[in-house]
Amino acid sequence: MPELRKDPITGRWIIIASERAKRPIDFKAAPATLRGAATCPFCEGNEASTPPEISAMRYPNTRANDRGWRVRVVSNKFPALRVEGDLDKRGEGLYDIMNGIGAHEVIIEHPTHKTSLTGLTEEEIREVIWVYRDRLQDLKKDVRLLYGLVFKNVGETAGASLEHSHSQLIVTPVVPQQVQQEMQGGKHFLDYRGRCLFCDIIKQEIETGDRIVVSEPNFVSFAPFASRFPFETWIMPKRHMTHFENLPQHLIADLAHILKATLAKIEGALANPAYNYLIHTTPFDVGEVDYYHWHIEIIPRITRVAGFEWGTGFYINPVPPENAAAFLREVRIS
Amino acid sequence: MPELRKDPITGRWIIIASERAKRPIDFKAAPATLRGAATCPFCEGNEASTPPEISAMRYPNTRANDRGWRVRVVSNKFPALRVEGDLDKRGEGLYDIMNGIGAHEVIIEHPTHKTSLTGLTEEEIREVIWVYRDRLQDLKKDVRLLYGLVFKNVGETAGASLEHSHSQLIVTPVVPQQVQQEMQGGKHFLDYRGRCLFCDIIKQEIETGDRIVVSEPNFVSFAPFASRFPFETWIMPKRHMTHFENLPQHLIADLAHILKATLAKIEGALANPAYNYLIHTTPFDVGEVDYYHWHIEIIPRITRVAGFEWGTGFYINPVPPENAAAFLREVRIS
Repeated sequence: MPELRKDPITGRWIIIASERAKRPIDFKAAPATLRGAATCPFCEGNEASTPPEISAMRYPNTRANDRGWRVRVVSNKFPALRVEGDLDKRGEGLYDIMNGIGAHEVIIEHPTHKTSLTGLTEEEIREVIWVYRDRLQDLKKDVRLLYGLVFKNVGETAGASLEHSHSQLIVTPVVPQQVQQEMQGGKHFLDYRGRCLFCDIIKQEIETGDRIVVSEPNFVSFAPFASRFPFETWIMPKRHMTHFENLPQHLIADLAHILKATLAKIEGALANPAYNYLIHTTPFDVGEVDYYHWHIEIIPRITRVAGFEWGTGFYINPVPPENAAAFLREVRIS
Repeated sequence: MPELRKDPITGRWIIIASERAKRPIDFKAAPATLRGAATCPFCEGNEASTPPEISAMRYPNTRANDRGWRVRVVSNKFPALRVEGDLDKRGEGLYDIMNGIGAHEVIIEHPTHKTSLTGLTEEEIREVIWVYRDRLQDLKKDVRLLYGLVFKNVGETAGASLEHSHSQLIVTPVVPQQVQQEMQGGKHFLDYRGRCLFCDIIKQEIETGDRIVVSEPNFVSFAPFASRFPFETWIMPKRHMTHFENLPQHLIADLAHILKATLAKIEGALANPAYNYLIHTTPFDVGEVDYYHWHIEIIPRITRVAGFEWGTGFYINPVPPENAAAFLREVRIS
């Protein structure tokens, strides 16, 4: 059973995923290269190579764990958290521990061996987004679970071990510190200014314009003012919206459009870099609030995080976000 | 001039180091391999290849920027922060900016081309520690500056660009968020329990013993209970001590000993992994306090940080710290 441990100094949680455990010798080997098409467990026809299907977008008259799907959700083969069991919160002297209860799912985005989400049509990306929404809505029903993070690792540098385009969903029994921090920032601003910080950011970015990457009627993508990484880009709905999983159906096409356009620009500018993206949304047990706004953070992994970053939480970014955005705006996509 | 920008949501600072600026095309190239001995600017005899010397441990009758040194401190050739100028704190609508005032120095640890600190004798490591202490004491006199982080990047994965053994020092005009978090954690504990959290951790670790790596009369190294990374190891003075730069001279030999022994064990266990270490100490403008305790954090870089970690601040660690410590205890060092 994986274990959640709380750092008594910072309050940060970590997951000891002992089932992924390795002996020191395992770290000496060179990192494995990404598994390509020949042996890909995510390709149609290889359904038996993954854990059983949790849900799928399927053609009529096809069966679970067989061909005929368009988007497929399975458990992670090496889950960081597991859904069975009790939290069993306990202490060990100074320290706090609970069982690693949660969920860790993989969303396989296409039946063929696409290596980028931008290789999918917008119609296909809509289905991927629909599945994100659907899985969050489903897992939210489990009262033990407080937060669901949808994320994507592309490329070995960004932590991917398979190249077939996929996302992941980890659902945790505590609210992550990063989200708590963002919510606190939003609350302080609301107390002080009486407005939503995220809405104000969108307003200022649209007015100044120099950090905008793509602006559409319902969504905007931009390089954040204090970008941690070169070409970091966020996507936000222009209207206030707290929970990603409540995304109204009529906006899904618009989100698919801006997500594909923004990723295609980043891929074009940086020659298909490794990247992560993640969706920050409001915790399951928090209702509609005035101070938090869901968003997608896209992080190209082209610089290295070193001792200074680990030691301070500061980041050194060699590319001013205004320059990154100007460059991305110019990238032509087909 | 580099710029410090504050993220309005989280309060996190980032440094836009435009003088390190790169065009997108620069990120397309494969990462440079580490510069080896043949062209090393840090080797004795190549003093002209670095910015001018700030200070050095030298043999008698030798001149600055010439041969005859044992430890040498120079400015970073591509500094993230600069010492000249005013902070000029200002706003830009929602956002906060200040000039990138500070210092960014490189501590070259040996005149010959050593690629690891463990290749130095303990006597030589004492001089390196002495230089850390000395540079912090000197920069602390600048009232604009609030925090000094000594850190080390070893190996390309850990952000090093030169293999010659060296450390860095970045001094900032704000207190980093990581340190603020640790201090807040320490304060809460002091308020609640009336004791120093760090001292209590040391006490519990020594009592249970299963996360101890090396224990000596004055210092201990151990795998933290909530280690973020496999084989993460911290070194702490056993007695309460807030500021690293006040390290009494009689403890420097003991610190050199445990630092070398701990690093040698990590290098032995993991076949010379890339790693970072960093020294967390109390901010310059905070006096002796009951709630914070300087320490060294050693972070082997053998796993990748992926979307889940960026999105949550959670870390997934596949090696229980008890296992890591048991393994490190067994590593025999010469």
